[in-house]
Amino acid sequence: MQSLQEKASAWSGVDQADAFAIDESNLFEKLGLQSFINLSTNFYTRVYDDEEEEWFRSMFANSKKEDAIQNQYEFFVQRMGGPPLYSQRKGHPALIGRHRPFPVTHEAAERWLQHMQNAMDESVDIDQDSKVKMMNFFRHTAFFLVAGNELQNQNQNQNNQVACKHAATKPAQE
Amino acid sequence: MQSLQEKASAWSGVDQADAFAIDESNLFEKLGLQSFINLSTNFYTRVYDDEEEEWFRSMFANSKKEDAIQNQYEFFVQRMGGPPLYSQRKGHPALIGRHRPFPVTHEAAERWLQHMQNAMDESVDIDQDSKVKMMNFFRHTAFFLVAGNELQNQNQNQNNQVACKHAATKPAQE
Repeated sequence: MQSLQEKASAWSGVDQADAFAIDESNLFEKLGLQSFINLSTNFYTRVYDDEEEEWFRSMFANSKKEDAIQNQYEFFVQRMGGPPLYSQRKGHPALIGRHRPFPVTHEAAERWLQHMQNAMDESVDIDQDSKVKMMNFFRHTAFFLVAGNELQNQNQNQNNQVACKHAATKPAQE
Repeated sequence: MQSLQEKASAWSGVDQADAFAIDESNLFEKLGLQSFINLSTNFYTRVYDDEEEEWFRSMFANSKKEDAIQNQYEFFVQRMGGPPLYSQRKGHPALIGRHRPFPVTHEAAERWLQHMQNAMDESVDIDQDSKVKMMNFFRHTAFFLVAGNELQNQNQNQNNQVACKHAATKPAQE
């Protein structure tokens, strides 16, 4: 069975080494906090205004935009060499676990990446080399989460089958 | 509803700030790679030799001991200020997602912590202050994973109910 990271590489077209090239230098020190805040603000403004793909926007309907922005840039800062802002406030990133409520399909990953690419294109704070590294990281991570989502659904389908068979052999109690 | 980190704090008795006091200094630079390798080797030797609690040892039956050791110390090194060894090899830690196959109950968390405390007590490489910080981190993380496990089971039970009702209203096809 393919591992999560093998699936992420196969589906994203980004190999493991390119995905984690963000770790070759300290991007937080290079770019500074405000660049990350600006990027996440631009990204989520696009997401919450996404009128072309209503299904995508609706995935975020239960979260406040300001919270989504803060969660994202704090994670980026922490993962890219800055202070552990995310963990101080919320604990482990636990990316797959915390994305469990969302249907992270291939289509959702592509839409997320489209908005991020547009936000990145507009960023004047981030140099070209860092943009390439970050987009590789984002692309690989998006499909890592698609792989996590599929694993969860597989487990669930297997469990449903077991549970339903079990239910079917018990006398009705309603 | 309590968040993952609120449950982790309540059940572990370790608040968020103490759990992430590992970030106040760079423990990897202070302790060095070999201390982490020694700790994980001692820990998993205890786990794989656990004859008192066979149910606990059996959770690890599908993994090779050497792999378990490497996965653990690479994650610790990466999380405590060292090079991102874990991500270079396996991608995101995704702690909840990667623990999905294991029944991470309160009892399992306590047994894990007991072995880790014993391994820590035997460590001559790690100073007392670092031991306290690391055990707080481990204790909080163990119950964070119990919370993640419960969330998964809750989701699954809800989905089972929906799936079985759905199955019951369809004509039998066997």
